[in-house]
Amino acid sequence: MADKIYRVRMNDLSFSVEDVPKEWLGLGGRGLTSTIVAAEVDPECHPLGPNNKMVFAPGLLSGTAAANSGRTSLGAKSPLTGGIKESNSGGTSAGIMAKLGVKALIIEGLPEEDDTFYHIHVTKEHVTIEPIPELVGKENFEVLDTMLERYGRKVAVFSIGTPGEQRMLISNISVKDPQGKIRSLGRGGLGAVMGSKKIKVITVDAGDSKETYLADAATFRAANKAFTKALKENPISGEGLPAFGTDILVNIINEAGGLPSMNFRYGTSENAEELSGEHVAENIQERGGKTTHGCHAGCVIQCSQVYNDKDGNYVTSGFEYEMIWAFGANYGIDDIDTIAHIDHIMDDIGVDAIETGVTFGVAAEGGMLPFGDGEAVIKILTEEIPNGTPTGRVIGSGAGNVGKLYGVVRVPVVKNQGMPAYEPRAIKGQGITYVTTPMGADHTAGYAVATNILNSGGHIDPLKKEGQVELSRNLQIASAAIDSTGMCIFVAFPALDDPACLPALIDMINARFGAELTGDDVTNLGKNILKLEHAFNLKAGLGKADDRIPEFMKYETLPPHDAIWDFTNEEIDAFWDF
Amino acid sequence: MADKIYRVRMNDLSFSVEDVPKEWLGLGGRGLTSTIVAAEVDPECHPLGPNNKMVFAPGLLSGTAAANSGRTSLGAKSPLTGGIKESNSGGTSAGIMAKLGVKALIIEGLPEEDDTFYHIHVTKEHVTIEPIPELVGKENFEVLDTMLERYGRKVAVFSIGTPGEQRMLISNISVKDPQGKIRSLGRGGLGAVMGSKKIKVITVDAGDSKETYLADAATFRAANKAFTKALKENPISGEGLPAFGTDILVNIINEAGGLPSMNFRYGTSENAEELSGEHVAENIQERGGKTTHGCHAGCVIQCSQVYNDKDGNYVTSGFEYEMIWAFGANYGIDDIDTIAHIDHIMDDIGVDAIETGVTFGVAAEGGMLPFGDGEAVIKILTEEIPNGTPTGRVIGSGAGNVGKLYGVVRVPVVKNQGMPAYEPRAIKGQGITYVTTPMGADHTAGYAVATNILNSGGHIDPLKKEGQVELSRNLQIASAAIDSTGMCIFVAFPALDDPACLPALIDMINARFGAELTGDDVTNLGKNILKLEHAFNLKAGLGKADDRIPEFMKYETLPPHDAIWDFTNEEIDAFWDF
Repeated sequence: MADKIYRVRMNDLSFSVEDVPKEWLGLGGRGLTSTIVAAEVDPECHPLGPNNKMVFAPGLLSGTAAANSGRTSLGAKSPLTGGIKESNSGGTSAGIMAKLGVKALIIEGLPEEDDTFYHIHVTKEHVTIEPIPELVGKENFEVLDTMLERYGRKVAVFSIGTPGEQRMLISNISVKDPQGKIRSLGRGGLGAVMGSKKIKVITVDAGDSKETYLADAATFRAANKAFTKALKENPISGEGLPAFGTDILVNIINEAGGLPSMNFRYGTSENAEELSGEHVAENIQERGGKTTHGCHAGCVIQCSQVYNDKDGNYVTSGFEYEMIWAFGANYGIDDIDTIAHIDHIMDDIGVDAIETGVTFGVAAEGGMLPFGDGEAVIKILTEEIPNGTPTGRVIGSGAGNVGKLYGVVRVPVVKNQGMPAYEPRAIKGQGITYVTTPMGADHTAGYAVATNILNSGGHIDPLKKEGQVELSRNLQIASAAIDSTGMCIFVAFPALDDPACLPALIDMINARFGAELTGDDVTNLGKNILKLEHAFNLKAGLGKADDRIPEFMKYETLPPHDAIWDFTNEEIDAFWDF
Repeated sequence: MADKIYRVRMNDLSFSVEDVPKEWLGLGGRGLTSTIVAAEVDPECHPLGPNNKMVFAPGLLSGTAAANSGRTSLGAKSPLTGGIKESNSGGTSAGIMAKLGVKALIIEGLPEEDDTFYHIHVTKEHVTIEPIPELVGKENFEVLDTMLERYGRKVAVFSIGTPGEQRMLISNISVKDPQGKIRSLGRGGLGAVMGSKKIKVITVDAGDSKETYLADAATFRAANKAFTKALKENPISGEGLPAFGTDILVNIINEAGGLPSMNFRYGTSENAEELSGEHVAENIQERGGKTTHGCHAGCVIQCSQVYNDKDGNYVTSGFEYEMIWAFGANYGIDDIDTIAHIDHIMDDIGVDAIETGVTFGVAAEGGMLPFGDGEAVIKILTEEIPNGTPTGRVIGSGAGNVGKLYGVVRVPVVKNQGMPAYEPRAIKGQGITYVTTPMGADHTAGYAVATNILNSGGHIDPLKKEGQVELSRNLQIASAAIDSTGMCIFVAFPALDDPACLPALIDMINARFGAELTGDDVTNLGKNILKLEHAFNLKAGLGKADDRIPEFMKYETLPPHDAIWDFTNEEIDAFWDF
């Protein structure tokens, strides 16, 4: 049975199930969300007003047995950046939506009665939209547990905590993972968009829907086997990430002088050893946690972990490099267990790890609180933010806004979105991705660290400008395509180095749909996505002056390499010449 | 002796006195500040970083006996709007700078030691730049009194209070007026720029400098006589404003349904009678205040007042319509004496009346405090803001940022600057000025209220779109030129209706400089200023999407006329076709 567009109108609490327009048939994930947002959302609308829409879409390969195909994309106009946003996450939702035949779930409008929050429940060709006052003011784990009790563990769950209810710009959307824990549609304040539409929780129940239809099952299986082999044989996706998780990067990036610390003042951190993947893995092993853990069914990389405290009690899972960097190196907390505790709190209330960590760095720079004070962070996250106090609202507004409130000049944001854990002065290819991607400062949009530091796809000197714009462009084109398949971005490592990987991925897409895509088609898909996102941003008011690094990086050198941001505007703007 | 450019470099605490470049000779006030900012400031720089500059300039006629020529302009890149900013104010500074031969005072750089604040003292061809730790943390009246004690009452004084020190975006710069009270360079967060440069106070001492040189004194005197006659015979500048001050507008604008109230929800206010100019004048007369009062020497309009409390004690002066509207109608305080008290506090700490009032409206909308709570306002202004608490920082950040922190959609700002006291849906010509002026929502940039409501310069229906873009364009061109002369914007009323007025003004400029300007030259000056400001903004990233009304005004009707903002983007963008 053909996939459908499910559309929910919050203004009159109605829904419709629509045929997929022909021009959207070949799209999934980011390609589909960005296409729908560009087609249906006025780029000049207020992101929290009635004219913004949320578009959830599984990837092209989600719901199949394809390895690592379990990412769900969410698109909207971002209230943080003011531009188009796609954020994707693992968890169980992509597979469930795909099996149910939900090509995309579009949510539009604002309810007329705004004195409660709603629960949207999606089943085969049907949607219920009902007030759920009993969960208003509750955080994600309670919401999740309530939904699992009500619908069983096979339901997909998207929810927001109190920051999302309050439309705070650091808020994200939680997604149930296979273990009943939480993954996040993290960046760009998408939790605030869900809060503005007064939606507390969305559940999707595939019922007895079977595995996604395959046009050519035999070819698909063979291609998946080759693809999985490529993933497993790659030293990063097959060894480094499974052994130490993403946090393996702390020592590597610190060594390269590109680990932003103390609000992007330095390129190395005194806390690196404490924060390192090696130390985290040691703790996990000693305390009976898990060093390998998948965020979605079918993951063969298993870069996630289960992290326990000293007494062997569960603290958190999905304890990632970005989180550990943000609070450990950038804000300066020197105790990994405190950071793990904060990670759990942040999953519970639903705030983005990168944005929140960068925000605390800027707040410390502005004198709001001291660097490295974990107790202050915990108090703000558990008391000030849930209660919406002025302090909570300040931190909840994100790094760029805190910079404005405190008159801070050293504010590491692009398009008002906080920078991830790679210093653009010392890893220049990554800086080009930050300034040019339509998403605002985002590392996954074009992970130049691969070629600048990890020697994946060759090597380009991270401290030099040469080749970086082209590298970032190629990676961004590929990433936009990968983000449309439902694949985890880490498939990029074998894709860059193993000639068997990409053809296998394309074979799977063709076998799934009975299509005849070539590598060029996939490249063109990536290009088209970037261009339509860029066009949306231009109409929304994000032009060349927004494709810029924060000015301080142009006159402050970064230790230890005394690195500086030395791209001219013309060099940056040439990114869009394709 | 020829005028000079005085340039102060805060990075090394040095100064120079420079000849005026030929191309700047014919410029003054806004024309000069915008030209220098456009020439010397990188549009992409951080407004609080080392590459922004402050440019103070008296008008072309400042320092002469020309009526109403005592306005000083300040230009910079605005930290509130992110675009170019010119703000001008009465007070004694324009005349003193002009007499001293200061064509412009440019202040650039940031001091290396940022643990104190500095005092800049300007005398004939000399500048001293010294730490002034004893005034750090003090508010404006204490700073002003200290300077007057030190230098006598004939010195010009620019200062900031604690909000400016803390680089808050609602902060302004105080300017000594003839009575030793305070006028303000108000909008766009220019106090934060002064704070970022660690300048607490600037004094200018003209010593025994004589009145500004006139190329043709006899012609000048005759022209000034004709000009003064036009000002005095006009019903608005000659009767309405002197009798009731600017606050005469409360009843007029309320009657027209264009008085924004309760954060721009309604077009009329229940408090109008309490707030009216008639009521204020009655209080002043009963309590021994002054209904007429000039903000600078040579003012023949005298629209200001001295307002006393019930016991006859001085409370405030310069108690303007915008202030009374902002706190009375828009935020809902129903007691004029409370608003007068707040006005005095705001002069003392140095925050912009419009931005602060609009900010409290948005904060109330977001649930931070109740509408109309004067005591809460006083506590925030006197305790939270000076101490830089999170609450103080929130309010100190301005309306647009508070909207972001609290997830508010009904946020009346353009280019992040709060809207003044005229509803764009009900006074559409004024709305066109708000969206198109390079200054952000600003009423003085092109005061279409004149023709929409006051029937000055003819009449255009305020509720209809027809003719508004052209009206606003013509007014903005004229205003840019007037802002270059040092003239108060209220000369626009006779200029619009009395054929003798503008020629007399041009005659004065020609007689002052020995020039032969025509009316067309003055129009071209205005056009050029607008175009170079617009070009700066485009480079700074403020494009078409920033020339827009807040989206809610496009779908929420405004009582009592059920007025809506119905301009298309194309109609607005046509503003720049000249």
